[in-house]
Amino acid sequence: MSDVFAFGVGLAHTGSTGAILDCLFPQPLLRPEGDHKDAALRFSPGTTTVQPGEIAVANDAVDGQLVPAALLEVDQPLTVVNLSADDAIADTASAYLKLHLLSHRLTLPNTMNLDGIFAHLPNLAWTSAGPIEVDALNDAVIAARARGSHLEIMSVDKFPKMVNYVVPPGVRIADASRIRLGAYLGDGTTVMHEGFVNFNAGALGPNMVEGRISQGVVIAGGTDLGGSASTMGTLSGGGEITITLGENCLVGANAGTGIPLGDRCTIEAGLYITAGTVVSVVDETGDEVRKAKARELAGGSDMLFIRNSQTGQVICRTNRRAIALNDTLHAHN
Amino acid sequence: MSDVFAFGVGLAHTGSTGAILDCLFPQPLLRPEGDHKDAALRFSPGTTTVQPGEIAVANDAVDGQLVPAALLEVDQPLTVVNLSADDAIADTASAYLKLHLLSHRLTLPNTMNLDGIFAHLPNLAWTSAGPIEVDALNDAVIAARARGSHLEIMSVDKFPKMVNYVVPPGVRIADASRIRLGAYLGDGTTVMHEGFVNFNAGALGPNMVEGRISQGVVIAGGTDLGGSASTMGTLSGGGEITITLGENCLVGANAGTGIPLGDRCTIEAGLYITAGTVVSVVDETGDEVRKAKARELAGGSDMLFIRNSQTGQVICRTNRRAIALNDTLHAHN
Amino acid sequence: MSDVFAFGVGLAHTGSTGAILDCLFPQPLLRPEGDHKDAALRFSPGTTTVQPGEIAVANDAVDGQLVPAALLEVDQPLTVVNLSADDAIADTASAYLKLHLLSHRLTLPNTMNLDGIFAHLPNLAWTSAGPIEVDALNDAVIAARARGSHLEIMSVDKFPKMVNYVVPPGVRIADASRIRLGAYLGDGTTVMHEGFVNFNAGALGPNMVEGRISQGVVIAGGTDLGGSASTMGTLSGGGEITITLGENCLVGANAGTGIPLGDRCTIEAGLYITAGTVVSVVDETGDEVRKAKARELAGGSDMLFIRNSQTGQVICRTNRRAIALNDTLHAHN
Repeated sequence: MSDVFAFGVGLAHTGSTGAILDCLFPQPLLRPEGDHKDAALRFSPGTTTVQPGEIAVANDAVDGQLVPAALLEVDQPLTVVNLSADDAIADTASAYLKLHLLSHRLTLPNTMNLDGIFAHLPNLAWTSAGPIEVDALNDAVIAARARGSHLEIMSVDKFPKMVNYVVPPGVRIADASRIRLGAYLGDGTTVMHEGFVNFNAGALGPNMVEGRISQGVVIAGGTDLGGSASTMGTLSGGGEITITLGENCLVGANAGTGIPLGDRCTIEAGLYITAGTVVSVVDETGDEVRKAKARELAGGSDMLFIRNSQTGQVICRTNRRAIALNDTLHAHN
Repeated sequence: MSDVFAFGVGLAHTGSTGAILDCLFPQPLLRPEGDHKDAALRFSPGTTTVQPGEIAVANDAVDGQLVPAALLEVDQPLTVVNLSADDAIADTASAYLKLHLLSHRLTLPNTMNLDGIFAHLPNLAWTSAGPIEVDALNDAVIAARARGSHLEIMSVDKFPKMVNYVVPPGVRIADASRIRLGAYLGDGTTVMHEGFVNFNAGALGPNMVEGRISQGVVIAGGTDLGGSASTMGTLSGGGEITITLGENCLVGANAGTGIPLGDRCTIEAGLYITAGTVVSVVDETGDEVRKAKARELAGGSDMLFIRNSQTGQVICRTNRRAIALNDTLHAHN
Repeated sequence: MSDVFAFGVGLAHTGSTGAILDCLFPQPLLRPEGDHKDAALRFSPGTTTVQPGEIAVANDAVDGQLVPAALLEVDQPLTVVNLSADDAIADTASAYLKLHLLSHRLTLPNTMNLDGIFAHLPNLAWTSAGPIEVDALNDAVIAARARGSHLEIMSVDKFPKMVNYVVPPGVRIADASRIRLGAYLGDGTTVMHEGFVNFNAGALGPNMVEGRISQGVVIAGGTDLGGSASTMGTLSGGGEITITLGENCLVGANAGTGIPLGDRCTIEAGLYITAGTVVSVVDETGDEVRKAKARELAGGSDMLFIRNSQTGQVICRTNRRAIALNDTLHAHN
């Protein structure tokens, strides 16, 4: 019997050629089992267009619901995506389904095959009338003005903002334009106006995010990013290291990190630690234990990074326990 | 006779259970006197729902106007808040009234009792159709798509943006999503795209704000915050010191301060001064007068903070007059 | 025969007194020649209001089109601007035409006379119903609420956002509220959520812009600005030097520059170079060649700026070829 990796019933916008522009999946499923799996297998693998009646029949066959009640009231063809396996992304609707899985917290960042996502997300104008193909935009703007109306354009991008598709419970998002669909925001996460979360990146919650969580970056519970704090992403100069921050860390305002951190680490406001930063590692008595490139400290816990404001020296304060842990960690490097 | 601390006639949105979600007060009053006070006292203390006819009668009884003419034309029940004293916030409408007082410039930040504000502001989805309860959002999004319409969600937050409620005269706000209701923007203030102003915080005007004014922070006239400049707030790691900046200061781009500053202070671009930063204080001849933690310099005037780019040393350049002032100031610490 | 510096047929909003608030020019022309010039010269110099029939006649007289087809279907008076020369800006419509020329990539930043632009751009509320005069805003907000509708206010500013007027081909703009009309975005430019581009400023493309391009600043192809990277503008403390960055530069996240850079320059993440920063210039062997103020290095190529994380010293690594180039360059200072 076939497997179901992911399944969703969605409402799509289509463009001038009939191609899918975007797709809303109100209740996506990851690796469904039992009657939900059976229901998914009623539909062809891949992406298909389905009449609402078929969805109603499939919904009736499950204990609970396959789709939210509001979707059953829609009187138009729906888009069904049934992915047998976590393969590279093959079409736009599948890309949207995978992004929904992340934002619905069904899977963590860096756990899915997202190959092909850029190729299969069309670059669209996201407007007050929904997504519009860029080529059709000028005429739409003129037409709106001519009839005394207004077309507001929020972005021109491959990725839409998350909240127009998913608002996970227990979050606050002060400026929704800064969270892409595909972000993972755990329960208890607040993203302030200066915060940013890319797709396939996130905060496990609870977190206070006033800085930028780049593609691939994950921060664990209790970790806060100060205003304009930066995390280097693999798409933008951070190299091949995927950055994660453990629990109860603080990256200060206007600070940044190019290395992963374990738990209970702090980077003081205004200090940027890159992988190549040479750091003086000092123990709890203030004595220098050694000098290290920051990348050698990657993943360590209980580290406090500051710049001595009288000598300009970047220091990592830690304690013997933490140093021992780091040594163990890096014995495997 | 009773006192009136604050009074407002507002237009509220209500949620599924009839609870007030938000309230617009076009013309709030702080400590009204004379016939305006008499008019306010026609209404019960606390928050009440009032028919428009009663408002018209009260409006006729004042010299001038109690509410703007446009509000008199509204044919629906209005929300009246009559606060006898500046007590802790007891309901949503009262919270909105106090936030309006700040944004209408009727009172400065840090002058009102805002206890209870978080508890009484519901976390809402702020949409192109106005505020919507988060639980009702998914159905609203599906329904909008199903009818070929679009629901745009701007934020999911307890605080709305200021300009949907108040646009004080003489300001420019390049990206309104970054100014919360309850911000105080004085005449002549420009907030550029990177600027941010939290509730109970503000700029007395005239100011150029390209950085972040955290909750509780106030900057005086002539003071500018460069792009992404940071001010530490009491809600986010800045500790118990409320930060104010005096007149004619400049916090450079990507710089920051964790201490209050007096007048005519400058922090160079890219330098973050925290309360614990050890600073070499030098006089006008360049000689070091003493070393001090930045918190000991809090509130001083005529200070220039730079980092020597050859030694990494953080320096506060000042002059004897300024040092003397600081010494006096800190004799009381 | 008269010259035509710039020409456009636009759709304007007008305010309560009939004054033009803004104007959309879907197909502006710079120094038209041949029958396009002849068509432009059918219209009076300066700004005029023209019936659509006259536009149709002029359009028929050109080979190709004078205006897009959608504009010919508009059944209302149009605004024609015919500027004989690049003089100081004399009215609102002319200001909009010049801003369109930049965003349509018809001319580069810093090539036009923009004197008078602030005086001729009214400060407006930019709303979901289009631009509204600030004085009329309160009544509009009350009226929207009273009828169960919602008026969303995006900004209160002299400059609107670019994408509501122009979306040049081959760009992605993650948060359109951060790009002002009058920005120049070359083909292949992506502006991420933290990116910002002012009017009369831009990226020649291809570029990844996650930082701020201030008024007057231009970055050449292959140059990237990391998250929250800052470029000093002439309007905001950068002094009189107009900053340009050559090709294939990288200004790291949270870094900044107050000097122009040539090609292939890098400023490490978190480092802010101001004109006055004293820099140790070292050659490829690591030996210090000289100390220099950063402004003396302005415009040089192949420079890498870092701060030694053990000594706090700001260093410019370069090579003899680059130093020689710089010396030549500055022989003319």
